[in-house]
Amino acid sequence: MNFLYALDLVGTFVFALSGVLTASEKKFDVFGAAVIAFVTAIGGGTLRDMLIGDTPVGWMRDMNVLGVIGLAVVLGILFRRGIIRLRNTLFLFDSVGIGVFTVLGVQKALSFHLGGVVAVMMGTLSAVFVGVIRDILTNETPLIFRREIYATPCILGGSLYFLLMHLARPNLWLALGPALLITGVRLLAVKRHWALPRVH
Amino acid sequence: MNFLYALDLVGTFVFALSGVLTASEKKFDVFGAAVIAFVTAIGGGTLRDMLIGDTPVGWMRDMNVLGVIGLAVVLGILFRRGIIRLRNTLFLFDSVGIGVFTVLGVQKALSFHLGGVVAVMMGTLSAVFVGVIRDILTNETPLIFRREIYATPCILGGSLYFLLMHLARPNLWLALGPALLITGVRLLAVKRHWALPRVH
Amino acid sequence: MNFLYALDLVGTFVFALSGVLTASEKKFDVFGAAVIAFVTAIGGGTLRDMLIGDTPVGWMRDMNVLGVIGLAVVLGILFRRGIIRLRNTLFLFDSVGIGVFTVLGVQKALSFHLGGVVAVMMGTLSAVFVGVIRDILTNETPLIFRREIYATPCILGGSLYFLLMHLARPNLWLALGPALLITGVRLLAVKRHWALPRVH
Repeated sequence: MNFLYALDLVGTFVFALSGVLTASEKKFDVFGAAVIAFVTAIGGGTLRDMLIGDTPVGWMRDMNVLGVIGLAVVLGILFRRGIIRLRNTLFLFDSVGIGVFTVLGVQKALSFHLGGVVAVMMGTLSAVFVGVIRDILTNETPLIFRREIYATPCILGGSLYFLLMHLARPNLWLALGPALLITGVRLLAVKRHWALPRVH
Repeated sequence: MNFLYALDLVGTFVFALSGVLTASEKKFDVFGAAVIAFVTAIGGGTLRDMLIGDTPVGWMRDMNVLGVIGLAVVLGILFRRGIIRLRNTLFLFDSVGIGVFTVLGVQKALSFHLGGVVAVMMGTLSAVFVGVIRDILTNETPLIFRREIYATPCILGGSLYFLLMHLARPNLWLALGPALLITGVRLLAVKRHWALPRVH
Repeated sequence: MNFLYALDLVGTFVFALSGVLTASEKKFDVFGAAVIAFVTAIGGGTLRDMLIGDTPVGWMRDMNVLGVIGLAVVLGILFRRGIIRLRNTLFLFDSVGIGVFTVLGVQKALSFHLGGVVAVMMGTLSAVFVGVIRDILTNETPLIFRREIYATPCILGGSLYFLLMHLARPNLWLALGPALLITGVRLLAVKRHWALPRVH
């Protein structure tokens, strides 16, 4: 699972970076930017850990997470203009991060002997809650309720992962396949403006 | 306590339904509506469980809760117009739900050996936090701070339940009486526009 | 540590009072004011305890905290005008409270065997999250992201406390020195309008 762990850190880095950019658009100061970056990067997993009861929550016990976020804040502030030009690349990594976060979230919930539906919810939460908190902190109606399908790929991929866990022997692709599916569906969804029907 | 448990599920159903209606007023998509419904239905109890340390939180261990919420989302989206016409009936069930949630919240806190004041707070929180989260997610100033007395009946009924627990032998009416009191006071409060004095 | 505990209660009292004043500016009713006061006074420590896994969270097990908050609500509502005239004195106590909350937060995190960086974060969170929740509940962009340096003194003082814990033998000044440093830097920062650079 070392490869997944590496992707986890990449996802954390990219989410933190997106937090810095959001904060800079809102003209927050350096500390505010660091807080938003931090919350964006660890918010989903933190809520998941508190709900499951896995405390002290994950990032408190893994200095790599804090290191990666610190790096993202420094680079984000120093090279802001350059990074904004890389938005497309960032979006790619962001989608990879969402895939990995979902699978790792499902994995953790299952290790606490929770059911399949709850595990998929925890995986999805790990991946998408991030945006909800960031938007609440910056006082916007959370994008998740207004945008292109955002959580649907996580639900699909998380469910696939849960099924595979019961059908196949554990191996790297078992986790990587669903993660890539999530990333792929999300990229397609945004490119083609897929949206869920509104309620009215 | 099977009767209370049934009322608990009814309350969950009605709260989820009210979440769907709020979401549809805000033109959220289907997924957003499901999230709001879910959060509205389980938010208060979830925060209570996290504060007390009863994790994994309640709904993760009871598939009936998830089932009831799912049903509310489907029915809420399919029969939106019809349900809006039923608003008065819904409000009745909503008030029943608040009464039951309060009593069950007090009960749980006491089972964790917490004091009476804290138990009444946890009961009230279980019942009313729901509205606070829903309003934060949809970016409004929480109604609880602006409207007719909303939490006061819960505090009264919760305290009564706590007292009865020390005075009488356990029986169904011990829980049902205070729950009905909360429902009754709330219905009266809204009908007669009772309000607490403002601070100024 | 009885002196620190007394200061802790003073900080709680002042934070609760500031919550009442905020609520009265927003024309909340009496109950809303009590809720805001309560959340402002215990919010930071509560989140800290949930993240660390020290549940039931602190104030549930210490009736003094609830008593002090209740007192602040009653006095805040009765003597509102007089208290507003005392704003400068209040700000002094508020700064003392932030210093004490930071040190106590670091202390608790260390007692759970967490690392230094995490402990300083938990101390800072205990002290400043308060304002974030209050602003979210009243639907404002959290001041912490816009104002004079707010968390920086906590980070400095918290780190100093952590270092002293490793260098000196335990004594009252070990905790009191960093707490006073935080209070002092904060008072100076506000008086001279120190601000962190913005990101742009």
